[in-house]
Amino acid sequence: MLGNRIRREDLKGKIVSAEEAAMLIKDGMTIATSGFTPSGYPKAVPLALAKRAEEGEEIGVTIITGASVGDELDGALTRSGVMKRRFPYQTNKYSRDAINKGKLMYQDMHLSHVPQFVDYGFFGKIDIAIVEGLAITEEGGIIPTTSVGVAPHAVKNAEKVIVEINTSQPMALEGVHDIYIPERPPYRKPIPITHPKDRIGTSYIPCDPEKIAAIVITDIADKVRPLGAIDENSKKISGYIIDFLEHEVKMGRLPKDLLPLQSGVGSVANAVLGGLVESKFENLTCYTEVIQDAMFDLIDAGKVTVASGTSFTPSEEGLKRLLDNIDHYAKHCILRPMEISNNPEVIRRLGVIAMNTAIEVDIYGHVNSTNIMGSRMMNGIGGSGDFTRNAYLSIFTTVSTAKNGDVSSIVPMVSHVDHTEHDVCVVVTEQGLADLRGTSPRERARKIIKNCAHPDYRDILMDYLKRAEKGRFMHEPHMMGEALSWHERFLQTGSMTIK
Amino acid sequence: MLGNRIRREDLKGKIVSAEEAAMLIKDGMTIATSGFTPSGYPKAVPLALAKRAEEGEEIGVTIITGASVGDELDGALTRSGVMKRRFPYQTNKYSRDAINKGKLMYQDMHLSHVPQFVDYGFFGKIDIAIVEGLAITEEGGIIPTTSVGVAPHAVKNAEKVIVEINTSQPMALEGVHDIYIPERPPYRKPIPITHPKDRIGTSYIPCDPEKIAAIVITDIADKVRPLGAIDENSKKISGYIIDFLEHEVKMGRLPKDLLPLQSGVGSVANAVLGGLVESKFENLTCYTEVIQDAMFDLIDAGKVTVASGTSFTPSEEGLKRLLDNIDHYAKHCILRPMEISNNPEVIRRLGVIAMNTAIEVDIYGHVNSTNIMGSRMMNGIGGSGDFTRNAYLSIFTTVSTAKNGDVSSIVPMVSHVDHTEHDVCVVVTEQGLADLRGTSPRERARKIIKNCAHPDYRDILMDYLKRAEKGRFMHEPHMMGEALSWHERFLQTGSMTIK
Repeated sequence: MLGNRIRREDLKGKIVSAEEAAMLIKDGMTIATSGFTPSGYPKAVPLALAKRAEEGEEIGVTIITGASVGDELDGALTRSGVMKRRFPYQTNKYSRDAINKGKLMYQDMHLSHVPQFVDYGFFGKIDIAIVEGLAITEEGGIIPTTSVGVAPHAVKNAEKVIVEINTSQPMALEGVHDIYIPERPPYRKPIPITHPKDRIGTSYIPCDPEKIAAIVITDIADKVRPLGAIDENSKKISGYIIDFLEHEVKMGRLPKDLLPLQSGVGSVANAVLGGLVESKFENLTCYTEVIQDAMFDLIDAGKVTVASGTSFTPSEEGLKRLLDNIDHYAKHCILRPMEISNNPEVIRRLGVIAMNTAIEVDIYGHVNSTNIMGSRMMNGIGGSGDFTRNAYLSIFTTVSTAKNGDVSSIVPMVSHVDHTEHDVCVVVTEQGLADLRGTSPRERARKIIKNCAHPDYRDILMDYLKRAEKGRFMHEPHMMGEALSWHERFLQTGSMTIK
Repeated sequence: MLGNRIRREDLKGKIVSAEEAAMLIKDGMTIATSGFTPSGYPKAVPLALAKRAEEGEEIGVTIITGASVGDELDGALTRSGVMKRRFPYQTNKYSRDAINKGKLMYQDMHLSHVPQFVDYGFFGKIDIAIVEGLAITEEGGIIPTTSVGVAPHAVKNAEKVIVEINTSQPMALEGVHDIYIPERPPYRKPIPITHPKDRIGTSYIPCDPEKIAAIVITDIADKVRPLGAIDENSKKISGYIIDFLEHEVKMGRLPKDLLPLQSGVGSVANAVLGGLVESKFENLTCYTEVIQDAMFDLIDAGKVTVASGTSFTPSEEGLKRLLDNIDHYAKHCILRPMEISNNPEVIRRLGVIAMNTAIEVDIYGHVNSTNIMGSRMMNGIGGSGDFTRNAYLSIFTTVSTAKNGDVSSIVPMVSHVDHTEHDVCVVVTEQGLADLRGTSPRERARKIIKNCAHPDYRDILMDYLKRAEKGRFMHEPHMMGEALSWHERFLQTGSMTIK
């Protein structure tokens, strides 16, 4: 049965239990794993590792992944206290809670920086890579499953490799992946992608078979997350974006088939992309990070010809749809290392239209994507910076209020900056769209307040702006004593509104 | 005499006075010009244009340049009120003053975004390009002078082109330039640079001779700026950086000849680079924006083999040295369009070590490069973001205090964010160096306070941090009511110190 899963006889002797494999991991080690969103991450070995700590062993490790991963890794290793340091992104409620309690050291990084940080040695030695694989090839290459993430760089740089062969992942995924690993500077060559459909690498992660220290067979399925239903606000936001893109085509600023689209992770991003099913656009391509349910709709509707990403991130229903029709979707999808899916070089060259979600946006166009009220880590910046900075057009979406109207997503000054005024072209809420290109800060403020803020907050935003404009400096007027007062008021009273 | 300057007979009839050429410019036009720093910018036509307004004509235009330019352009057009809108960078005292008084609409942009904004049509129609040239070739191509900047894209997209042939610029500059203009997406190809020395284009800016509407002959020299003497603080900062780079080489994280260096504009950046003359490093290369005096020292010392930039930005003394020895320096220098010198693709591929200056840095590693006390525009972000984000290593330098100690350059929260915690690897002041790679925000804060803050401010920074850590959220603890209080205190009392 494992013949097609482990295609080298000499490696079959490496098959061990998850518990035995986990024993390779020692206190103080740095572990890099596969996984990007709850897709394609190792499961059995992290669970076995957590168990050791639960049974009383003192063990702490640093974990580097592609992005967020499922509960078997982030959840189990946080609850057991094994995970002491975490790079570069997470969404798990236990790890988030540990971060915000100051118990888990977390560095929130641009995802495109992670593979090269591993490769340059900036994280120190990578002791062990744990990689979920569909199969191991004759050459010892590891065929990834539902994501690629940082796995190629983890395997390249780790001293030892543990492979989790996951039999719940269908062999039909073979051929979906395209693995290309750039050299380190000064030997890097141009990445030869000029269209999202271009395949430039191998279908497996190259791996010296000598480095494979253990192989674990498991069938634990990806713990995919539900996607919220497409609500009225998302439909409105999607509608404004489509109108804007149509206008750009009409003005000759975009080709009629647009340019490759990137859309962030989660329900709103899924809904925004999904809106294109009803649009007039044809022959679209996507050069993005994650392939969510809406992409399957777009492929089925014949709207999208190719979707390039680093992971499939479907809902449970979407996962079933993907796996039941994998031959169909595999023709239209490519999974790449995050070094390539999020690479500034390729994003700039292709002219990607980047669409990401904001926690809050300020009147001058700065965006907070990570820290609620300045200090509370939500998830992390993820790939939003990789795409935003190097995009043809960078679009941020947010619903104009949160907490039943007690929080305005448009504020005088954001409480944490992840994307600066220099990077944000367009802001969209369910209220409308503000095109910020070519505007001075004070012009921008008026557009954002008028077009994007909730009516309940427009007057007090204008009041802030006008009073700030009475100060000495008129380029980007702020009142230092009041700029963050809306957040302070929320923390004190539970509402940003003025009673 | 002009035979070698205008190499097409049919264009000699286009020679007119600066006043006649300026008459092509009408109220409401958008003008894109050559020039990057006070080098290679048009001078005679802007002066003639300013004169029209000074004589009573109502005329207002939008000006797009490579970066800052000399007083004949930014100063004259600001004083005369002709310049209504300005992209993407400036350093002129008159334009800065107009911006801060709210009289000049200014958008502070990443320089690498400017050529493509011109090319994509995001600025609207470019009515006229004004380009300073050394000569016009047989093909109608324009050979640039001491900078390239956005000139190639200006010429490509403008309806009409005015060429200022500047006879003060020596013909020996011919051959220094390498002009390559990427296609618009979706037709972009990889930029074929794999080493700073690579030449990939033409020695002139291609131009349809039909578009050349006027040629003006002038001999007004570049108004170069003095570079400050190399002071003790700069020497210390440079020393810490060299020690750090040596350590990285020793740890195997950098090749022994390092990787291409970028250093920002101005006296401190010049001094930091200049420190390398005394270092043990050899065979260095630079892939940077501007070539300042220190580069000539490094070339003469045999330390730097090639320097690629988009402008020569010497002091008056440096300019004389350059022009007197142009044959020598031309062998080691290449001037490229800013689309190439600042291109994310090339910066990422080459693995550039980016060194830029900060106005202030906060305890979590966010950097303010533009707005003093949150609202007062200094110059702009320039190319610092292009290099920082896509660099192998991003280093920020600042002296730990300003205003005779009344301002700390290390603050609880910066009053404006231009570079985020996700982008900054290393912070250096005359006090020391903080390596932020792999650190959580609270670890970062302790390193920055201990290594970089001035001793007079360390205790109150630690006090802020410790009180913030008593709050509910421990990832990146801030007190919203107090985060910007240091700036508020300075604005109220003239000092950030607590009396």
